[in-house]
Amino acid sequence: MPSYKAPVREYRFLLNDTFNMSQYASLPGFRDAPLDIVDQILDEAARLAEEVLQPLNQIGDTVGCKLENGVVTTPPGFKEAYKTLVEGGWPSLVADPAFGGQGLPNALGVLFNEMVSSANMAFGMYPGLSHGAYSALLHHGSDELKQTYLPKLVTGEWTGTMNLTEPQCGTDLGLLRTKAVPQADGSYKITGTKIFISAGEHDLADNILHLVLARVEGAPAGIKGISLFLVPKFFVKEDGSLGARNGVSCGALEHKMGIHGNATCVLNYDEATGWLVGEREKGMRAMFTMMNEARLGVGLQGLSQSEVAYQNALAYAKDRLQGRSLTGAKEADKPADPILVHPDVRRMLLNAKSFNEGARALLVWTALHGDLAHASDDAAIRETGEDMMALLTPVVKGYLTDRGFANAVEAQQVYGGHGYIEENGVSQFVRDARISMIYEGANGIQALDLVGRKLAQNGGRGVFAFFKLIDDFIAANKDEALAPYAAALASARKDLEAATMWFMENALANPDNAGAGSAEYLHLFGVTAVGYMWALMAKASIAKIAEGKGDNAYYETKLKTARYYFERVVPETATHLARIRVGAAPLMDFAADEF
Amino acid sequence: MPSYKAPVREYRFLLNDTFNMSQYASLPGFRDAPLDIVDQILDEAARLAEEVLQPLNQIGDTVGCKLENGVVTTPPGFKEAYKTLVEGGWPSLVADPAFGGQGLPNALGVLFNEMVSSANMAFGMYPGLSHGAYSALLHHGSDELKQTYLPKLVTGEWTGTMNLTEPQCGTDLGLLRTKAVPQADGSYKITGTKIFISAGEHDLADNILHLVLARVEGAPAGIKGISLFLVPKFFVKEDGSLGARNGVSCGALEHKMGIHGNATCVLNYDEATGWLVGEREKGMRAMFTMMNEARLGVGLQGLSQSEVAYQNALAYAKDRLQGRSLTGAKEADKPADPILVHPDVRRMLLNAKSFNEGARALLVWTALHGDLAHASDDAAIRETGEDMMALLTPVVKGYLTDRGFANAVEAQQVYGGHGYIEENGVSQFVRDARISMIYEGANGIQALDLVGRKLAQNGGRGVFAFFKLIDDFIAANKDEALAPYAAALASARKDLEAATMWFMENALANPDNAGAGSAEYLHLFGVTAVGYMWALMAKASIAKIAEGKGDNAYYETKLKTARYYFERVVPETATHLARIRVGAAPLMDFAADEF
Repeated sequence: MPSYKAPVREYRFLLNDTFNMSQYASLPGFRDAPLDIVDQILDEAARLAEEVLQPLNQIGDTVGCKLENGVVTTPPGFKEAYKTLVEGGWPSLVADPAFGGQGLPNALGVLFNEMVSSANMAFGMYPGLSHGAYSALLHHGSDELKQTYLPKLVTGEWTGTMNLTEPQCGTDLGLLRTKAVPQADGSYKITGTKIFISAGEHDLADNILHLVLARVEGAPAGIKGISLFLVPKFFVKEDGSLGARNGVSCGALEHKMGIHGNATCVLNYDEATGWLVGEREKGMRAMFTMMNEARLGVGLQGLSQSEVAYQNALAYAKDRLQGRSLTGAKEADKPADPILVHPDVRRMLLNAKSFNEGARALLVWTALHGDLAHASDDAAIRETGEDMMALLTPVVKGYLTDRGFANAVEAQQVYGGHGYIEENGVSQFVRDARISMIYEGANGIQALDLVGRKLAQNGGRGVFAFFKLIDDFIAANKDEALAPYAAALASARKDLEAATMWFMENALANPDNAGAGSAEYLHLFGVTAVGYMWALMAKASIAKIAEGKGDNAYYETKLKTARYYFERVVPETATHLARIRVGAAPLMDFAADEF
Repeated sequence: MPSYKAPVREYRFLLNDTFNMSQYASLPGFRDAPLDIVDQILDEAARLAEEVLQPLNQIGDTVGCKLENGVVTTPPGFKEAYKTLVEGGWPSLVADPAFGGQGLPNALGVLFNEMVSSANMAFGMYPGLSHGAYSALLHHGSDELKQTYLPKLVTGEWTGTMNLTEPQCGTDLGLLRTKAVPQADGSYKITGTKIFISAGEHDLADNILHLVLARVEGAPAGIKGISLFLVPKFFVKEDGSLGARNGVSCGALEHKMGIHGNATCVLNYDEATGWLVGEREKGMRAMFTMMNEARLGVGLQGLSQSEVAYQNALAYAKDRLQGRSLTGAKEADKPADPILVHPDVRRMLLNAKSFNEGARALLVWTALHGDLAHASDDAAIRETGEDMMALLTPVVKGYLTDRGFANAVEAQQVYGGHGYIEENGVSQFVRDARISMIYEGANGIQALDLVGRKLAQNGGRGVFAFFKLIDDFIAANKDEALAPYAAALASARKDLEAATMWFMENALANPDNAGAGSAEYLHLFGVTAVGYMWALMAKASIAKIAEGKGDNAYYETKLKTARYYFERVVPETATHLARIRVGAAPLMDFAADEF
C-alpha cells in the first residue's frame, strides 16, 4: 500500500530560509500570513492530505467514476472528503476577501495544492478547476455575476469547470463550433458538444458553474469570434437558492489511462442558458486568465506525482533486501543488503529528490512573483513579478510535468516487477502523472509559448531580467563555499543564453528554427532555472550552518543534493544547446510521405 | 482504432542491401533461406501479424485473462489465433531440425518476432516464452528429456515457461526457497511458490512445460545451490499421450499495468514431479541460456511498441487538422493544416523513426552475430560472433526498451488529449512497453552486466573488437558522400571510448564508480551502436542510389533519416560521458536517512 507524508520541513526551508517571506510582511495577503499562522496552516493541510485524501487515492483509481442516467457518482469516500475540505475552509485559501476568501499569497497556495495533489491528484482536480473558473469570473465577470456566483465558488459549495475542447478542436480553438444565440433578456442560448471536461459532472457539490467558450451567431470565424459564457448546472434564484436544471448534461465519461477518480465528461449543451463573461468576442482573453492559473496548477501536479512516487520508491529501496553492495556486504547479518546500497538505485532516487526540491522552489518562486505583481507597492518589483510569472509559467508547466512523469517512471523502476503490479500503487502515479504533460496546453505548446511569445515579450525584457538575476547572484557569491555551485550555474546560464541568442538570430528568418528547438529549449530553461533555485538553496543552507542554531544535518544534506544536481543533472544543457543549433532543416526536409 | 503494417520493405533493406545476407548462403541455416524464400516468409508473417494478431490486441487489453477454479482463460480470439500460428508452423522457424525445427537463422527469427510483438505483444509472449524453455532443454537437457518434450515444444503444441522469481527474490536468485527432494526413480518433488510467471497457465496448448529453479534439499545456500528442473503441467506417458495432472497450479493472476492478454501467474508447486535439466547445482548456467535468448526477445519488444506507436501517431499527425504551419498555411483550402507541419510534432516522430530503423538494424546485426557464432566455418568469425552477441545483448535489451518506451510516450503525446483515452489504443502501447524495461533483468541489471562483466570479458576483447569495427568503417569510408555520417559516428565513438577508459581506470579501485555511471554508459553505448548501424545503412543507401536501379526516393529518405539521427540524437553522448566522469561520490555520500 502506498503512503504519503507531506514535506512540511521542506516548505519551511523554502518560505523561511530561502525566500525569507517575512520581508513582505507589510504587503496585502502576506500580512495575514505571519510565520506562526503559516506553520499552522501547513500542519493542518498536511493532516488533511495524509489522513483524508491519500487513503482514497487507490480506491479512486480502481473504482473510478460512474455515469448512470446522467448522474455521475464519484468514487467511495470522495463526497465525504470534499465535505471535509469545504468545512475546513480550504477552497477559499487564496481567494479574494471581497468574496469571502482568505486572501493568502499564492506562494502558500501552491504548497497546499501540492499536498492535495500528491495525496490524491484526481480528487485535487475538483477544487483545482473551481479555482480557474473563479479567476475568470473575478477578473472578467460583471458585478452581478460576481455577486451571484463567486461567494459559493469561493467556499467550495459550488464547483467550476473550463469548457474549451471540442472533438474537432483542442489546441486550435479557432475551429470551435459551439454556438451562442442572444436572447432578449441579455442571456444566450448555448448549443454544442464539449469533450474532455474535467470535473464536468459529479456528486460533490450542489451546483457546477461551467465556463464555456462559444461563438455568438454571426461572429467572425476563427479565434477572434469567440466569447466566454457562464452556464450554471442549476439556475440560481434571486434569493440565492437553486432553481431548475439548465440544458447541460453529461453524455459520457471518458475511459482514461489514469486520474480515474476525476470525472472527465462529454458535456452536451442543448440550448443551455448562459451569460457573457467579459466582452463579446474577447473570450480568449478571459480564457487565458483561467489557463495561466491552471498551468501553474498542472506544473505542480507533475511535481506532486514525482514527490509521492519518490517517497514510496525510497521506502521500498530501504526495505527490499536483494543482492549485495558492489563494495562488500553492508548488512552482513541480513540475507541481503537493502537495494538502496546500489549506485544505480540511488541515481534514480536522487534524480527525483534533487528535482523535487529544486522544482518546488521554482514553483514557489514563480507563484511569489505572481503575488508581488499584484501586491507590491514598488512598480519595479511589480514589473519583475509580472515578467517572471509570464516567462516561467510555461517552464513550470512543461518542465515540471515532463520531469515529474519521468521520475514517476524511474520510481516504478526501483520497484522492479512489483512496480508493474497495480496493487503496489506506483503504476497509478505514472498513469496519473502522464496527463499533466498533455492537458492545459500540451508541453509542445508550452515550449512554443516560451520560445515564440515569452522570449520576445517587451523586447526580451523578461528573459534578460532573468539572466541578470543569475548574474547578480554569481557576482555577489564568489566566496569559496558557494563557488562550485555558482560555477555550475554559470555554465548552464551560458548555454541558455547561447540558445536564446541563436533563436533571436535564426527564428525571425525561419520560424521553424524556433519550433524545431523549442522542446529542447524548454528543458534547457528548466534545468537552468531549477539550478538557480539550487544555488539560492545552497546559499541559504550555508548561511544556516554558519548561524549554528541547529539542524545542521538537514542543511548538510541540502548541500549534498545541490552537488548532485549540479554535477549529475546540469551537464545535459550542452546537449540541449547542440540540438537547438542544428536548426529546422533535418526535420523539415522530409515530405509527408517520407515519414 | 489502432492499426499495424509490418515494415517488410525495411526488412528487405536490412537483409539484402545493408547486411548482404546472401554472402552466408553456404552456411547451415542460411542455405535453407535463399532470398526468395525469405521474401515469402516475410510476406506471410506480415499477413499473420496484420490480419490475425493485431485485431486481437485491444480486446486482449480490455478483457484480459480470467482465472476461475484454477482454469485460466485467455482473451477472446487468442485460442484460435494460436491455432493458426501452430498450423502455420511458425513456432518452429528457427528451431533445430533434429527436433522438427526449420533451422532458419535467428537474424530472420527476430524480424518475425518483431512483427508478432508489434501486432500483439501480450500474445507474442506465449510462443516467446516457449522458445526460452526450448533453448534451455536443447542445450542442457538429457537425451530422454529432449526426445520426450522438444518435438511438441517446437511445433507449439505445448508451450513453456521460465520460473525464477519468488516473493522474496527477483534479481538476487541466491535467496530462492523452492525446494526439490530427490526421489528413488531419479525424479524430484518440487515445492514452493513462484511469482510473475508469464504464460504460466492458459488454454492455448495441451501441455505447459515449466522450467523451474529450485534448491535440492541439503544444497548450499546462495546461488551455487540452485538447480533447474522441468515440471510438465501434465505427465507424458510412454506413448507420448498426456497422463495425469502434475502438482502445479495457478494460485492467482496478477493485475498489471499492461500486457493484460498474457497470463502472469502465481504458480504453486506442491510436491510437483520434476526432472533435472543439466547438472545438479549448475542451474544458473542453464538459466542463463534461457535468459540470454529472452533478453534479445525483450529488446525487440521495446522496438516493437515504438514501431507500432509511431505508425499510429504518424497516421494521426497526417489526419488531425489543427492550427497552421509557423511559416504560413500549407493546406489553405482546409480549416487547418495537419499537425505534421509542426517541427515539434516532427521531432517526436523522427526520434521514433530514426530509432526504429537503427535499433532494428542493431537487433538483426546482433542476432546475425549469434548465428555466425554457431554456423560459421571460420574460427575468427565465430569468435567475433560470440563477442558481439555477448557485448550487445544487454545493450539491445536495455537501450531498446528504454528508448522504445520513451518513443511510445512521445507517440502518445502526438495525439494530445486523445492519446490519454484508452479507446484510441496508444495508451496500451505505453503500458505494454513499460514492462520490457523491467523483466528479464531490469535495465539497471543490464547496465551492470555491460559495465561489470561484458567490458572485462576476455580482457576487453569484445569492446575493443567493436571499436575496431567502427574504426575500420571510418577509415574505409572517407569519401565525400559518407564523410558527414562517419564524422558524427567518430565523435560518438570517441565519447564511448573515453567512458570505457574511465571505467577501466576508476572502477577497479571503487566498483561503485562503475555502478554510478552504468545506466549512462548503456545509453552511450546504445546511441553509438545504433549510430554505427546508421553509418552502414547510409553507405548501403548511397551505393544503391549510385547503382541506379530504382527506388531512389526510398534511399534518399534513408539518408535524411541518417542525418536526423546524427545531428539530433547523437549529441547526447557528451552528456552521458560528463555524467559518467563525475563518479560515485555524489551518489554514495548520502547516508540512508539523508534521502
